[in-house]
Amino acid sequence: MADKKKKKPQKLKARSPRGFVDRSAADIRATDEMIGKIREVYERYGFDPVETPAFEYTDCLGKFLPDTDRPNAGVFSVQDDDEQWMSLRYDLTAPLARHVAENINEITLPYRTYRNGWVFRNEKPGPGRFRQFMQFDADTVGAPGVQADAEMCMMMADTMEALGIKRGDYVIRVNNRKVLDAIMASVQVAEDDGGEQRLAVLRALDKFDKFGLEGVVQLLGTKGRMDESGDHTKGAGLNDAQIMRIVNATGWNEVSSGSNSGVSDGLTLANLEKALSLDGASIEGVKELEAIRGIVRAAGYEQDRIWFDPSVVRGLEYYTGPVYEAELLFDVTNEKGEKVQFGSVGGGGRYDGLVKRFTGQDVPATGFSIGVSRLMTALKNLGKLGQDEVLAPVLVTVMDKDTESLGAYQKMVQDLRGAGIRAEMYQGNPKDFSKQMRYADKRGCPIVIIQGNEERENSKVQLKDMIEGKRQAAAIESNEEYRAARPGQFEIDAADLVDEVKKLLAVQASA
Amino acid sequence: MADKKKKKPQKLKARSPRGFVDRSAADIRATDEMIGKIREVYERYGFDPVETPAFEYTDCLGKFLPDTDRPNAGVFSVQDDDEQWMSLRYDLTAPLARHVAENINEITLPYRTYRNGWVFRNEKPGPGRFRQFMQFDADTVGAPGVQADAEMCMMMADTMEALGIKRGDYVIRVNNRKVLDAIMASVQVAEDDGGEQRLAVLRALDKFDKFGLEGVVQLLGTKGRMDESGDHTKGAGLNDAQIMRIVNATGWNEVSSGSNSGVSDGLTLANLEKALSLDGASIEGVKELEAIRGIVRAAGYEQDRIWFDPSVVRGLEYYTGPVYEAELLFDVTNEKGEKVQFGSVGGGGRYDGLVKRFTGQDVPATGFSIGVSRLMTALKNLGKLGQDEVLAPVLVTVMDKDTESLGAYQKMVQDLRGAGIRAEMYQGNPKDFSKQMRYADKRGCPIVIIQGNEERENSKVQLKDMIEGKRQAAAIESNEEYRAARPGQFEIDAADLVDEVKKLLAVQASA
Repeated sequence: MADKKKKKPQKLKARSPRGFVDRSAADIRATDEMIGKIREVYERYGFDPVETPAFEYTDCLGKFLPDTDRPNAGVFSVQDDDEQWMSLRYDLTAPLARHVAENINEITLPYRTYRNGWVFRNEKPGPGRFRQFMQFDADTVGAPGVQADAEMCMMMADTMEALGIKRGDYVIRVNNRKVLDAIMASVQVAEDDGGEQRLAVLRALDKFDKFGLEGVVQLLGTKGRMDESGDHTKGAGLNDAQIMRIVNATGWNEVSSGSNSGVSDGLTLANLEKALSLDGASIEGVKELEAIRGIVRAAGYEQDRIWFDPSVVRGLEYYTGPVYEAELLFDVTNEKGEKVQFGSVGGGGRYDGLVKRFTGQDVPATGFSIGVSRLMTALKNLGKLGQDEVLAPVLVTVMDKDTESLGAYQKMVQDLRGAGIRAEMYQGNPKDFSKQMRYADKRGCPIVIIQGNEERENSKVQLKDMIEGKRQAAAIESNEEYRAARPGQFEIDAADLVDEVKKLLAVQASA
Repeated sequence: MADKKKKKPQKLKARSPRGFVDRSAADIRATDEMIGKIREVYERYGFDPVETPAFEYTDCLGKFLPDTDRPNAGVFSVQDDDEQWMSLRYDLTAPLARHVAENINEITLPYRTYRNGWVFRNEKPGPGRFRQFMQFDADTVGAPGVQADAEMCMMMADTMEALGIKRGDYVIRVNNRKVLDAIMASVQVAEDDGGEQRLAVLRALDKFDKFGLEGVVQLLGTKGRMDESGDHTKGAGLNDAQIMRIVNATGWNEVSSGSNSGVSDGLTLANLEKALSLDGASIEGVKELEAIRGIVRAAGYEQDRIWFDPSVVRGLEYYTGPVYEAELLFDVTNEKGEKVQFGSVGGGGRYDGLVKRFTGQDVPATGFSIGVSRLMTALKNLGKLGQDEVLAPVLVTVMDKDTESLGAYQKMVQDLRGAGIRAEMYQGNPKDFSKQMRYADKRGCPIVIIQGNEERENSKVQLKDMIEGKRQAAAIESNEEYRAARPGQFEIDAADLVDEVKKLLAVQASA
């Protein structure tokens, strides 16, 4: 009993919720750098920013998420005190449609906009699966022609290059939902089941990157697919003949496929057009792709940048026409140690029906979304981020902690800051001076400033060059030698502090 | 019956949830400009960014919001599938405390950090009351001395000036929770009620800006206060003698109070110290304020910038020492047409207990938060934002919509963009050319480019100078005259497009 009483009071456990993570200084700076470069491209293309809040009324968002078979799954929802349900946005497209519909009389169409922001998915958390992530979107609303889709593809390509990803290391793959629909119609995918089989086929095709041809064939068939954990996904229920013809149309079975192969995507489109014509299926989708192809080629974007590929699906349900995605082609090593292509970092498509849900009128639109964290990972892999590192501050140490001394140290710091020099006073407990030096070392401070009693009386300060100091220290063997040499430290007039620090920083920068 | 059948299908109503708003291009650009300037100051002070996600476990956040008497009120919460409750952060301080506690072994203390981000309050929405707003925070964790609080005050002052708010138009007001506690102890505010009366007194004092002296006196007394809507707030239950002495200590009753009055805040502190000493109350808080005063004065920050004022409270419960806020002193006209001082745009204080909730060990910290939207409103009032407006794009119009022509227009646009010129092709239905010109006009396009059949055959394009055109059009009376003059329009060789556009933009910029 006595033991139980002595038990420590239970402390609160510090942990962030599953699937949510903090962002480090390096990550934030790299993201800002990347977003700045993307924004520059979009602005050059004539796009202007507009943003929506984190919450939308649940009915405004609609249910367009892939892989959410449970009702209400996929989003975080709360009921407001007036009984209305609100949800955190799961993407930036559905809220944009609401924004445009709400302000349709004030907005000048066609309307080119961009935005970046956090989106939320109420998914089962797992390693590397985040429930909050950043997207960077661009959309043109009120643009009925495929020239708007063509522009999106070129803008994605320019964005990749603005970020330093060189030609050949990325490709924009383009397809058309109407093509997929025509293929499905030509093999008699059911049309009287409320679109259920159609959706199952699209989802199966979308899994090629993840499960390969075998997995897709299983998902298209009647038996479905069992994953490693034993979870079973129902098949779309097609027979072998149907599956064969769909797979043929995607081009996956051609060894020579890919944007860098000798095969022209123009030929692929021509073949597709011929095949669909023979089946009596619609060739409208292929015609649209041919128009997009004509426009981008005329503007100088060849097959190595924009590649027409009938296997592109894009998971979201609301697409109605051209779909496109940016794929990175270089290899990375995955968690299992295998070399794999980096893959998609973003994509989008035409969604002519989203605004109409509100307005009742046609408001055709097209746009795409970049997965910011994923693209950042890619850029880190390529060494394209974080070149301009931020210099750590100059440290003014604290020898005496009476108010007058603190005031004097603080004045030095403010003088340095006033001259645009990153600087700080030591804010920990100043008693242990070696702790202050360890702090300066860990923090990477380039210069440390020291003023004791004696120096203050003589209006002097000590400047310690931490970079030169480290270099010298490495060359000195014994502790006594080290002390005698006082590596990289020298006394200056207190009045010259700002000038001397500037001079020393310049010397360090040039070294 | 027939009528009923014809009824249009009910459309979804496009609206954003109550208390949530969209952000316009102008607002986003102004915010980015402002945040950039603030960030520059914080970086110069040696602060590094770190960010936490939108959600925290509810127990990690704690309940420190002012004015939330109902349990669970004030925050948006959802229950995760493992039964744990998560809440959207209501500020950026509680999540930072969690972050530091979680990474206490990796973080080098003292730790200076900053972050900006959205926070959420589940409050009753009302005009001008938002449930999502942006805060910009800076904190130093692991800093026991008041020199860290002094630094915060100076950094707030420097931030105001970096944003263009001139000295005299702002002041940083500083107080100490320990001073408020000493005053309350000296008038025997109850100590055996779990802190209930203390909290009621603090909340009442915090309402001075909102309700004036009369309102505060009502809230401190036994009867409480009835607002205009008839809602009643309970009083703190003090008697008249107690109220008088508290009000005296705040200095509100002195006509001459204020940072620009002749009264020295040093004298105020000395008087306060004397009064508390006589009552046998603790003078620790006053001593701390005197130390802060000594440090900031030594660094050159006088009373016109940092002003010690015993009436400052700050609403949040977690403060344990010095509290400070940035107040803008210029007048604005409120919704009722009255001239009022703009007031607080941010503030903060010392919160030595927040990290300890997790670690069990003392981790003293201090920091402040800027209300980004509110500060932006202030800067707009002062005309300090949006000077560098973004130029609207050059518009390439569409005369022919066959793929080949579209390709040719698109190539022009890409050539312009490639040369760094903001440009776009018209993306609406191109049939009605006058609609394209109206679009260019509304959008503010500086130049419009036109190429019809004939021009294309001769490798020419028409350049329309929209700015010169408007000037000339204003001087021309009749429609025929206008057409004859073709104001500001001239033909160039298609090959010279980029050069000619550059030249014309330069001429426009210099005019």
